Amino acid sequence: MTVDWAHVFAGRVGGMTASEIRELLKLIDRPEIISFAGGIPDPDFFPTAAIARAYEKIFQSNTGAGGALQYSISEGFTPLREWICAYMGRLGVEVGLDGVLVTSGSQQALEFVGKLLIGPGDKVVVTRPTYLGALQAFSPYEPTYVSVPMDEEGPELAALEAALAEKPKFFYLVPDFQNPNGTTVSLARREAILDLCVKAGVPIVEDTAYSELRYEGETIPCIAALDAARNGGHLSHVIYCGTFSKTMVPAFRIGWVNAAPEVINRLVLMKQAGDLHCSTINQIVLHDIVSSIFETHVKHLRAQYKERRDAMLAALAEFAPPGVTWTKPEGGMFVWLELPEGVNGTALLERAIKEANVAFVPGSAFHADRSGQNTLRLSFSVTKPERIREGVRRLCNLLKTG
Amino acid sequence: MTVDWAHVFAGRVGGMTASEIRELLKLIDRPEIISFAGGIPDPDFFPTAAIARAYEKIFQSNTGAGGALQYSISEGFTPLREWICAYMGRLGVEVGLDGVLVTSGSQQALEFVGKLLIGPGDKVVVTRPTYLGALQAFSPYEPTYVSVPMDEEGPELAALEAALAEKPKFFYLVPDFQNPNGTTVSLARREAILDLCVKAGVPIVEDTAYSELRYEGETIPCIAALDAARNGGHLSHVIYCGTFSKTMVPAFRIGWVNAAPEVINRLVLMKQAGDLHCSTINQIVLHDIVSSIFETHVKHLRAQYKERRDAMLAALAEFAPPGVTWTKPEGGMFVWLELPEGVNGTALLERAIKEANVAFVPGSAFHADRSGQNTLRLSFSVTKPERIREGVRRLCNLLKTG
Repeated sequence: MTVDWAHVFAGRVGGMTASEIRELLKLIDRPEIISFAGGIPDPDFFPTAAIARAYEKIFQSNTGAGGALQYSISEGFTPLREWICAYMGRLGVEVGLDGVLVTSGSQQALEFVGKLLIGPGDKVVVTRPTYLGALQAFSPYEPTYVSVPMDEEGPELAALEAALAEKPKFFYLVPDFQNPNGTTVSLARREAILDLCVKAGVPIVEDTAYSELRYEGETIPCIAALDAARNGGHLSHVIYCGTFSKTMVPAFRIGWVNAAPEVINRLVLMKQAGDLHCSTINQIVLHDIVSSIFETHVKHLRAQYKERRDAMLAALAEFAPPGVTWTKPEGGMFVWLELPEGVNGTALLERAIKEANVAFVPGSAFHADRSGQNTLRLSFSVTKPERIREGVRRLCNLLKTG
Repeated sequence: MTVDWAHVFAGRVGGMTASEIRELLKLIDRPEIISFAGGIPDPDFFPTAAIARAYEKIFQSNTGAGGALQYSISEGFTPLREWICAYMGRLGVEVGLDGVLVTSGSQQALEFVGKLLIGPGDKVVVTRPTYLGALQAFSPYEPTYVSVPMDEEGPELAALEAALAEKPKFFYLVPDFQNPNGTTVSLARREAILDLCVKAGVPIVEDTAYSELRYEGETIPCIAALDAARNGGHLSHVIYCGTFSKTMVPAFRIGWVNAAPEVINRLVLMKQAGDLHCSTINQIVLHDIVSSIFETHVKHLRAQYKERRDAMLAALAEFAPPGVTWTKPEGGMFVWLELPEGVNGTALLERAIKEANVAFVPGSAFHADRSGQNTLRLSFSVTKPERIREGVRRLCNLLKTG
């Protein structure tokens, strides 16, 4: 008897779908394409010299290499966790070593949150739009999504309150320069969100992937800090997900999660069962570089990416036809376009690649309810300013002739 | 309202338990302890010089470092997957790039297999004893285990046939020098297992973590090769899990899984949703070293570990009191002791650490049904021959005075 795999797969496999972004990335790897698609950092900005020195130190040491290449504890490399605790302290959150787990990027933290909290049919509240990778992480655990619309200050409170009344397992939110729409949640809105979630007894999963990349305006406290301020400095309602992929390098696959110790305790078991631990040597090298260059390197990144954001916003102001609106993000990597009703982003992408050699991600991918057909995500992170201007010009020409 | 976390956790969290091995490892990190507990490779044998050179090459290249530090595809680094395909070809399995996924060690492959195949209450067949890490990977998906007893040739066929009649999702097996009991499944038994599983339409999950570490006797074809021989060279019933943790280094967290493309296709989506991809730079470095030193390095490891296995078997023959029996593994890292009925391995461990400064893992941890109270797993992998002799002497003295 042959194996009838489709029949053998567990029910949750129906929730697994390919990322439109990642499938697209395979198609647009031609030099003539100006791509605003991938939300990835520019490799020209990687702190390569510092990383090379950190590796050298390990292999020149008489004792270091063996430990760096061996198995290690599931919780994560202790000096790196100590660095993370100190970092969180600067953000206003007191975290001990029992409140931090090192994960394979924040993507794994989201995967673990799904595995920890979601049973089949459980409600999960997300924003509309929301981060596609979070939907991919959660969906195999078979939730029902409740989407909360956003205005320029963040998720709309009346809709959030109605969503929380459905007794969801958690509310997932990217408060700073959200992927995909670049929106930052205002301080007043953060406090109000926390009020509502505390009242409803619903945890907040706060994804801060882009928070360090602010190009203008004042830093707004993370929701974790607001939660801690109400709880003697400690996390109560918030599960905080951080990453080094945007500030340092993605290839190490190192992020982290902070939460109440009773939550971290379970997540450590999940890490142990899931892949034992993150790469030991990667954690050691990352700890070396964040200890020495974190602040200066992030400052450098802010200056570099600000130029690109400015170039994209200027080009849109110069070239966009009437009826097209866009967000003005204070940081991050993304500008969000809303096209006139009836224009389909996916159809536009096909034309854009063929006729204009320009690429982006259609916005519908970022909607749990598959709405947002007339929206686009443009990333400015890997394209030099003059190419950004040319790409936006081409895209806007296409919109005019559409 | 505070968050009542225990109430918010999904049902599957009940299946997550701490590894007794890993919890123990935290306690025995004192120099006076002779530890036979952890099944980890000896860092003295790591190919450190080759690894250091591979990193240097990346950072001395004008083009390499950016790509090595960037995001990469979920399937895994293509040259590494090509190396794996060639390696599998030498084992008698034809695999294309669409039949291989690079995972964070074979632990993640097991986790993914659980996520892919197990729904709550589904039956999963394992051997008695079986690998603890596999139980940890599968249990969060809430299976019911059916344990098949083993004799010196492997799982007992009548019991396996009865287990397969319960329509399990898969049969999990470590065919070579199994962790924990060191047993190798004979060729005749492998063919018979495949016959039964093909007849029942039940997939075999073959975990080959130790297969390269054979110290005597002829290599026996993997079950994947037997499956492929019946299917024009291709995998049909077998999901094959491999790892570089035992042959190269564990810290990179690089293993792989081979299966029919329709299975790999789903596992790639799982990887994308779970942690995007394995560390790019780790895959590049690993590909460099396996391309140049795999065969010579594994040959070196075999000679080194053989000395330690021999030392342990000789010491047991010299010191073990009557009533104690043990396996004679042809490879791997483990010898399995059976004590007289009524002796409790966990109680013995407490005494062994306190009274004899020697450690091991009680065998009951490796039983899905928690039987095997009178069994112990001894690892000889990280201890020098003279210390092995001394540790076995101390342990056997304790058994005599018990």
